[in-house]
Amino acid sequence: MKSMPSLLDVYQARRRIRSMVRETPVIMAPELAGRSGAQSVHFKLECRQHTGAFKVRGAANKILSLGEDARQRGVVTFSTGNHGKAVAFVAGRAGIPATVCLSEHVPAYRAEMIRQLGAQVSVKGRSQDEAEQNYRELMQDRGLIPVVPFDDPLIIAGQGTIALEILRELPETQVLMIPLSGGGLLAGMAMAARSINPGMHIVGLSIDRSPAMVESLKAGKPVQVEEKPSLADSLLGGIGFENHYTLPMVEKYVDEHLLVGEEEIKAGMFHLFDTHRIIAEGAAAVGAGIMLSGRIDVKGKRVVSIVSGGTVDTAAYLQVLQERLERKTHP
Amino acid sequence: MKSMPSLLDVYQARRRIRSMVRETPVIMAPELAGRSGAQSVHFKLECRQHTGAFKVRGAANKILSLGEDARQRGVVTFSTGNHGKAVAFVAGRAGIPATVCLSEHVPAYRAEMIRQLGAQVSVKGRSQDEAEQNYRELMQDRGLIPVVPFDDPLIIAGQGTIALEILRELPETQVLMIPLSGGGLLAGMAMAARSINPGMHIVGLSIDRSPAMVESLKAGKPVQVEEKPSLADSLLGGIGFENHYTLPMVEKYVDEHLLVGEEEIKAGMFHLFDTHRIIAEGAAAVGAGIMLSGRIDVKGKRVVSIVSGGTVDTAAYLQVLQERLERKTHP
Repeated sequence: MKSMPSLLDVYQARRRIRSMVRETPVIMAPELAGRSGAQSVHFKLECRQHTGAFKVRGAANKILSLGEDARQRGVVTFSTGNHGKAVAFVAGRAGIPATVCLSEHVPAYRAEMIRQLGAQVSVKGRSQDEAEQNYRELMQDRGLIPVVPFDDPLIIAGQGTIALEILRELPETQVLMIPLSGGGLLAGMAMAARSINPGMHIVGLSIDRSPAMVESLKAGKPVQVEEKPSLADSLLGGIGFENHYTLPMVEKYVDEHLLVGEEEIKAGMFHLFDTHRIIAEGAAAVGAGIMLSGRIDVKGKRVVSIVSGGTVDTAAYLQVLQERLERKTHP
Repeated sequence: MKSMPSLLDVYQARRRIRSMVRETPVIMAPELAGRSGAQSVHFKLECRQHTGAFKVRGAANKILSLGEDARQRGVVTFSTGNHGKAVAFVAGRAGIPATVCLSEHVPAYRAEMIRQLGAQVSVKGRSQDEAEQNYRELMQDRGLIPVVPFDDPLIIAGQGTIALEILRELPETQVLMIPLSGGGLLAGMAMAARSINPGMHIVGLSIDRSPAMVESLKAGKPVQVEEKPSLADSLLGGIGFENHYTLPMVEKYVDEHLLVGEEEIKAGMFHLFDTHRIIAEGAAAVGAGIMLSGRIDVKGKRVVSIVSGGTVDTAAYLQVLQERLERKTHP
């Protein structure tokens, strides 16, 4: 096992990934500040990142760290979501072969999107577990280099670069609200922010339909939880039974855990669209949602909330907005 | 009358406004390239500019050019739309007093938005013409400095900075598709682009419901046209009876004029949302719309289309998307 990533690793990540990622904007949210009593609220718009999510930062840091031999062999991952797109994007830009393992159940348009970014798609198996089995075989048989979604020091350090951008622009930030699932985003950002400002208050926002990290913290080891479908589908999934990094880092850094419900997520999505014209996926709207519901005390504080991605399905997204618009117009 | 703005003015504008504007992203549109037969299509996302529209560039160039005396007197404009917001934003950031004249018919939330950006709002008169009268009085009585929406060399040069950003990133661009109403955006961008590349093909996209510039070109002088409501409301309005700059510049630089219809605008708005997750106002979707309808020949060309702004009304916007989604799902 490698050692835990440090602030220096985040600085190195920032330099390494510079050509591959956007410095995303930070915008003011005076209305939410007014409603919540916060001194200020800002959103960090990782939905404006290449591929539409923060994941490209970690993937870029991992892939661009590879030596010549590994680059020639190529990388492999399994993911249908933002991580798969990020790996395909980075490898495609760097001219490194990439294979993304998908199950037969993944819609064809998703496979096509990953292909267009320059990756090979290996469709095999009828479930995500069988796709993972295919991924392990490709790794072992062909010597492809695995790029895991979160539990890797380089992935964690890459996501941590978001905190550097926030603190450069808003060094007085007191509270960071960070979506939490596997914990790569939270671990990297929290470690970097605390290393710069030991007083930073870190809020981890999990979804109540799949709080794998929170349950694992209670159990003192990785546990599996039952998953129910959620609008914040990027926050579904476990933390891995062989978790080495994100579980201890989340334990060390998080001051406050909150479980966010579906109605809060919908309210957050509508608010971000209606007030800021931001297309946020469910996972990215948890911060706005929890501030709107008033279930977090940020009075007098300078708050930054991470809008982690903007991958939505058109029909499902419009349904959420329409429903909330009607509720706003005819309360 | 001052002389026509030159490329040097655009370079000076770029330096002057640097701290006040975002360098907006350029994104690839491979699907539209495929459909239209273009070698490549890119969108320049001025909807991601501060205040949600390109207008802040021209306003910043004008306002930051003012001397100390003028800054202390303050600026005045009349506009309910993106230009008014841009003036309020720039003046607010620069600590210069600004007054925006509105008629009594402008919805209260719009006035509030302008106030929040730091400007004074002067509500007077029952029509846009009466608001303009109020504006003239404030100018004459209090010596406030007018910031007109388009027919000013500094405004034109400010909008021209968009072309510099495009050509730095994509110097092989062959075709620029630019929304056209008063002509400030088109005049500045076309002049800058042609000065750098004399072979650049400039397409002006007007709306068929209010083609004031196209009719004025035919008449050889500014004419008024009947206006019908349009989804592309930012492209409504005349070019001013005392037009000195944008009319001759548009005449000089535009190779191809197209009038875009409402159905094309809707198709463009839906496409930008559905394919790219971009919230584009009607005026900003004319380029996508005309490429989707196939009424422009860009075969084999490298095309950049300007997505000029993202100011939409939630209910009207969702209605367009919903209608188009149904048409896509049940053709």
